[in-house]
Amino acid sequence: MTSYYRRLTEVAGQRGPLCVGIDPHPSLLQAWGLTVDARGAERCARHLVGVLGELVTAFKPQSAFFERYGAAGVAALERVLADIKASGAISILDVKRGDIGSTMEAYADAYLADGSPLAADAITCSPYLGFESLAPAFERAIRYERGVYVLARTSNPEGDAVQLAFNDSGSVVQNIIDAATAYNTNSRKKAIGLVVGGTRQRLGCDISDFNGSILVPGIGFQGGRMEDLPKLFGDAVDQVLAVVGRGIISAGPDAQALRTRVAKLIM
Amino acid sequence: MTSYYRRLTEVAGQRGPLCVGIDPHPSLLQAWGLTVDARGAERCARHLVGVLGELVTAFKPQSAFFERYGAAGVAALERVLADIKASGAISILDVKRGDIGSTMEAYADAYLADGSPLAADAITCSPYLGFESLAPAFERAIRYERGVYVLARTSNPEGDAVQLAFNDSGSVVQNIIDAATAYNTNSRKKAIGLVVGGTRQRLGCDISDFNGSILVPGIGFQGGRMEDLPKLFGDAVDQVLAVVGRGIISAGPDAQALRTRVAKLIM
Repeated sequence: MTSYYRRLTEVAGQRGPLCVGIDPHPSLLQAWGLTVDARGAERCARHLVGVLGELVTAFKPQSAFFERYGAAGVAALERVLADIKASGAISILDVKRGDIGSTMEAYADAYLADGSPLAADAITCSPYLGFESLAPAFERAIRYERGVYVLARTSNPEGDAVQLAFNDSGSVVQNIIDAATAYNTNSRKKAIGLVVGGTRQRLGCDISDFNGSILVPGIGFQGGRMEDLPKLFGDAVDQVLAVVGRGIISAGPDAQALRTRVAKLIM
Repeated sequence: MTSYYRRLTEVAGQRGPLCVGIDPHPSLLQAWGLTVDARGAERCARHLVGVLGELVTAFKPQSAFFERYGAAGVAALERVLADIKASGAISILDVKRGDIGSTMEAYADAYLADGSPLAADAITCSPYLGFESLAPAFERAIRYERGVYVLARTSNPEGDAVQLAFNDSGSVVQNIIDAATAYNTNSRKKAIGLVVGGTRQRLGCDISDFNGSILVPGIGFQGGRMEDLPKLFGDAVDQVLAVVGRGIISAGPDAQALRTRVAKLIM
């Protein structure tokens, strides 16, 4: 096996640092002429993977749009993850889980353990209960050669009250960046990545020394621009994996239109 | 329909402020002689509801222990939620979701909208992306007479770095308590509750003026004691719903032993 970071870097070196957000929300399903149910969400998602799976580095399915339909939606998500794996692209399941103790272990087993029906190459986690509370996910990620993207600096303005708050060691977001950097150094695996929104003029934190993958949503439809990434991320810009959702999906379902949209972004 | 807070208060007035945590983790399933899979988790959970459903005010199923088995586990969770509803007890689904925009709307539709297979009477949410980012959940809760418990002060020490950090308006946790109080006042529905761990000597925040339900995990096995609650919660102690998980479940699967454990706690 090869570590998540190495696999990601290899694929991104060939295909470019683009991650397609799979967000089958009701208005999109309607626009594509699909039913607003688990079946519609599955057809939308699997169509995207079928058309783009050999072109892009990664897909980021948003779990909420599958959970919305209960167990039937989660069963669809299992099949979407299997399709991504078969395509050669990397799956980053956006679940934003975060808990403590045996509950966090259960989430880690659900999404990062070999053999679990919902295992992805990487997941997102939320650190309101503290960065260290996510340790079971980090441990599984290292053991199974997967990745964990911890929410650090999100693109929405409401996040400031938490993320820019200060304690004795600096801001909450800077604490998380520094702790993730240290964890990656000490473990000698870059299993921990960070989620940092791409729509801001300034991040309000220093991420230039971070040593893992940086997942950057908000590019395109939400206002973030690829050309602004070097200014925002400094020396760490080469670690950025840019997530484009609506900016690609809105071209569908026509396969050629979807591929053209991706080709323009990768160039 | 009656608001969540009113329904909860009515049931708790008759049955006592006790919520049974449904945490079917692998070691428990083994101890009960059940298989460590979706079927085992379902049998454990539905047995608890069958034996205790007419005695206790609420159940808190932990979603992670069902997600662990993929779609099959989530299908089991749907049936557990249906059993809780049929028993007359209140369901508080512990999912700790938190996101922004249309994704948060999808989570709110998944867990708080009438007709959704995973709808519960209330859910837990995590505010790392800001209290206001959870607005779609608050809105659905009010529309459908359900509840949202926002993580405020958790019992684990790693949470301090985030929850006790300061911004211009005070600490992160105090901001959340104050915002939840104001939201409940302005909406004239006490749809927002808070999650506050019960194992601490001091909370490090002032919750005595909060006007909604307070969900307090950590009682029993984790070290929190019922008799310490008045000191911790002051005037708000009457709004406390104490969660006991292992302290009850460890008596099972024998039905009489489970009922005796509950009776001792309610007295």
